[in-house]
Amino acid sequence: MARVLTPRAEDFPRWYQDLIAKAKLADNGPVRGTMVIRPAGYAIWERMQAEMDARIKAAGAENAYFPLFIPESYLKREAEHVEGFSPELAVVTHGGGKQLAEPVVVRPTSETVIGEFMAKWIDSYRDLPLLLNQWANVVRWELRPRIFLRTSEFLWQEGHTAHATREDARAYARRILHEAYEDLMVNVLGIPVVVGLKTARERFAGATATYTCEGMMGDGKALQLGTSHELGQNFAKAFDISYSSAEGGREHAWTTSWGTSTRMLGGLIMCHGDDNGLRVPPKLAPVQAYVMVVKDGEGVGEAAAKLRDALRDAGVRVALDDRVDTPFGRRAVDAELRGYPVRVEVGPRDLAAGNAVVVRRTDGSKSPTPVADVVAAVLAALDADQRALHDQALAHRKSRTVEVSTLAEAIEAAATGWAMVPWSAVGVQGEAEANGQGVTVRCLLRADGSVPDSEDESDLVAILARAY
Amino acid sequence: MARVLTPRAEDFPRWYQDLIAKAKLADNGPVRGTMVIRPAGYAIWERMQAEMDARIKAAGAENAYFPLFIPESYLKREAEHVEGFSPELAVVTHGGGKQLAEPVVVRPTSETVIGEFMAKWIDSYRDLPLLLNQWANVVRWELRPRIFLRTSEFLWQEGHTAHATREDARAYARRILHEAYEDLMVNVLGIPVVVGLKTARERFAGATATYTCEGMMGDGKALQLGTSHELGQNFAKAFDISYSSAEGGREHAWTTSWGTSTRMLGGLIMCHGDDNGLRVPPKLAPVQAYVMVVKDGEGVGEAAAKLRDALRDAGVRVALDDRVDTPFGRRAVDAELRGYPVRVEVGPRDLAAGNAVVVRRTDGSKSPTPVADVVAAVLAALDADQRALHDQALAHRKSRTVEVSTLAEAIEAAATGWAMVPWSAVGVQGEAEANGQGVTVRCLLRADGSVPDSEDESDLVAILARAY
Repeated sequence: MARVLTPRAEDFPRWYQDLIAKAKLADNGPVRGTMVIRPAGYAIWERMQAEMDARIKAAGAENAYFPLFIPESYLKREAEHVEGFSPELAVVTHGGGKQLAEPVVVRPTSETVIGEFMAKWIDSYRDLPLLLNQWANVVRWELRPRIFLRTSEFLWQEGHTAHATREDARAYARRILHEAYEDLMVNVLGIPVVVGLKTARERFAGATATYTCEGMMGDGKALQLGTSHELGQNFAKAFDISYSSAEGGREHAWTTSWGTSTRMLGGLIMCHGDDNGLRVPPKLAPVQAYVMVVKDGEGVGEAAAKLRDALRDAGVRVALDDRVDTPFGRRAVDAELRGYPVRVEVGPRDLAAGNAVVVRRTDGSKSPTPVADVVAAVLAALDADQRALHDQALAHRKSRTVEVSTLAEAIEAAATGWAMVPWSAVGVQGEAEANGQGVTVRCLLRADGSVPDSEDESDLVAILARAY
Repeated sequence: MARVLTPRAEDFPRWYQDLIAKAKLADNGPVRGTMVIRPAGYAIWERMQAEMDARIKAAGAENAYFPLFIPESYLKREAEHVEGFSPELAVVTHGGGKQLAEPVVVRPTSETVIGEFMAKWIDSYRDLPLLLNQWANVVRWELRPRIFLRTSEFLWQEGHTAHATREDARAYARRILHEAYEDLMVNVLGIPVVVGLKTARERFAGATATYTCEGMMGDGKALQLGTSHELGQNFAKAFDISYSSAEGGREHAWTTSWGTSTRMLGGLIMCHGDDNGLRVPPKLAPVQAYVMVVKDGEGVGEAAAKLRDALRDAGVRVALDDRVDTPFGRRAVDAELRGYPVRVEVGPRDLAAGNAVVVRRTDGSKSPTPVADVVAAVLAALDADQRALHDQALAHRKSRTVEVSTLAEAIEAAATGWAMVPWSAVGVQGEAEANGQGVTVRCLLRADGSVPDSEDESDLVAILARAY
C-alpha cells in the first residue's frame, strides 16, 4: 500500500497534521488559530459530547447558556483570574456600527458571568448545591496554534457548582473527575488516563486544588485531557456568592469548576492513530461498520445492502459504500484513514464462495466470513476491539513509563516517556528546574495510585513528562 | 389563587416578560441585548435541538463547525449580503493584547465562511450534493432586544447545501421546510404554522426564493419561526462554488440555506402560555409528569416515590418534588408556571382513600385517581394534551383569521389577527402601503394552501399581519 501519511516514527507532529487533513477531520480557519471541524471530525465530537453530557446529567448538573460577551469590568473582579487570561483575550470595541462605551470581551471561560448569576440565584441553603454546566465556544488568542490541541477558539463544556461546605465541594469535584471524565476517557475513548492532583505551580489560577486526567500519546508525551477544580471560597468571595444557613447566618459558598474540550479529539488521534490513519474505539465511532461493494457483480450490490440492513437491525452504526466508480483501493485507504472499526468487503469472487471479508482496523486482520455469520463476527469484533485499543494504549504507557528515584533521572526519562519519581525528590525547586528543561510535573499520586488531597501528604509519587 | 403574572389581555408583552422571569426560563445578560438561558429554559431548547437535529440528519445533512471569527473582507464579497448585515456586526479589533492588523467580525451567520470552504471541498459532480448544518451562536447587534425573539446573541442551526441543479436545490430547500421545520413545529411544538413563500420584499438578501413557517401568537400577531432559502447561483458565483460536470464542463452549483433558532422558545411561550404560566407540549417537555408530595403523612413519601418509579418505567420523563418544608401552594404555582403537562399530587387524605390527584396543565382538570391507575391516566393525558394544545392553537388561529378582498380591509383586520386577501389586491405597491402602517405580508399561499414557486403565479393568497 502506498504511503499515505508521514510515518509517526519519522515526524510525529507532521503525521498528526497529515492525518487530520487526509481523514478530513478539520481544516485551519481563515482567521489564524481558528479551526473548521469537518463532518468526519464533528461526528466524533458529537458522540463524545453525548456520552459526556449523559454522565454530567447523571451527576445531577443541569445545562444552561451564558452570553458570549462579558463586560471588561467583570474580568477585573478577580485579580488572580484576570492575570491568567488577559494576554489571551479578544476584545470587541465596535458594535452596531458604533464604538462601544465599554469594550466587551469574548469569553475565555464563562466563569465570571456564571459567578455573577450564581450570586443572584442563590439565597438560602435550600438553593444549594447549585450544579450548572454549559456547552459553548470560548476564545483564547493563541500564538502557536495546533488543531484540536491549542486553537484560538475551541468547543468545550464548563461546569460550575456551588456548595454549602468544603466537603461537599470536594466530593463533587471528585465525582465529576471520576464518574464523568475518567469513566468517559477510559471506557469510551479507550485512553487509559492517569488521574491525579496538580502541583501548586500547575494549579488553575484561583483554585485550592486542581485534579487532572493525563493521557500518554503515541510519542510518549503527556496530554492533559480534562481538569476539575476546587475553588475553596476564593471565587465565592470575589463574586459574593453567599447563602443564609439553616442556623440563620450568612455564609460564603464553596465552589468548583471543571472542563473538557475538543482537545479530546486531538488526544484520541494521538493515542490510537497509526501510520495508516485514525483508529476510533467502537463505542465512540459514528460509523462502526463500513460495508463496501468491492466492484460490480451479480448480486453484489444486493448482498451489501442486505448486510447493511442486518447490521443496522442488530444495533450497529453502519454505512454503505457502493461508489464502484471510485477505485476500491482508494476507498479502502480512505476507510483506513477514517478509522472505521470494521469494514465488511463484499466482492463478486468472495460472494461466489458465500463469503464477505471482515476487516478489523485495530489489528488489520482480514477474515473471509460466511455471509450469514457476518453480523455475529462484526459484533464480536466491536466488542473485542474496544478493549484491544485500550489495552494497547495501556501497554504502550507502561512500556514508556519508568520508575526512578532522582530528579536528574526523571528529566532524562522524560525525553522518551513518563517518569515516576518520589515527589520528595522533586519538590518546588526541582519542579522549577525540570520546567526549565521543558519537563513538567503532570500530577501527583499516592503510592497506591489514588488521588491525594494535598501535595503535602507524605510518600507521594510525581509523574514527570514533556507535554502538549 | 393569587395573581402571579400580568394577565395576557391586560398587557401581552409584560405577561411574556413576567412569565420568562418567574418560570426562570431566562435572564437578561450583563451586556445589553444578550441573554442567560436558565436550566428550565435550556432543557426545553435541548429537546427542540435533539428533535430538529434528528430530522436534519434524516434529510441527509451532516453537522460541522465553522469559526466564530470571520475576516472582514469575507463579508464584503457579496454586496447584497453585507448590506443586510453591516449595521448589526460586532467587530473584534484587539486580540492577544495587540491591535489586529485586520479586524475580525463575530459571525452574524456563517454563510460566507461556509461558502469559502464549500468552494474548496467541491471539485466534481461526485461531491454533490454537499449537505452541511451547524449548531452555533451568532451575533447581530440589536437595538430593541426582547428575550428569545430578538437578542444580540442567539443560538441557532444554519444549514447550507450545494447541488448540481436548480431542481435539486429547490427540492432540498422544500424538504427541510416540510420534513424538518413544519413537522417539528406542528407535531412536537404543537404550533400550527402556516408554510408559504415570502414576497420579494420580505425575501432574504441574495435569495431567489424564501420559504417561511409563520405561527400565530396568543395576541394575534405573527412570528416567523423558521425560513428556508433557495439562493440560485448567486451565492455560488460570489464564492466560486463550482464543479466539473459528468460531461466535463465547469458549472456553478445551486445553493440553499435554512435556519431556526432560540426564537422558537419565544414562539412556544407566546403560542401556548396562559395567565398561569407556560404550557409545554408533552412531546417537548423535559419533565412530563411532576409528582408532588402534598405534605408529610403515613406512607405518602413512599407512595410518591413508587409512582415516580412506575412512571419512569413506563417511559415518562418524571420528577419528584418532596420539598415538604416549602408550602404546597407555592410549589403548585411554580409547577403551573413551568408548564409541566401533568402533576400527580400525593397527599395523606387522598392516599387514605387509595387515590392520588392527576392534574392536567392543559385544561386545569383535577382527577382523583386510584393509585394503581395513575400511570395509565398520565399516559392518556400526555397523549391527549399533545393534540389538545395544537388544536387549541389552531382554533385560536382560525378565530383570529379573516378572509377579505381589499387591502384596506386586510390592514384593518391585522389590528387583531391575520387577514387572508388575494395577492392581486395587494401587490408590490399595496405591500409598501401596509408596511407603512406596521403590517407585513407574512407569506403567499396557493388557493389550496400549498406553497407557490413564485409570487407571479395567479390566484395567490397573501397573509397580512402585525409581526414580532
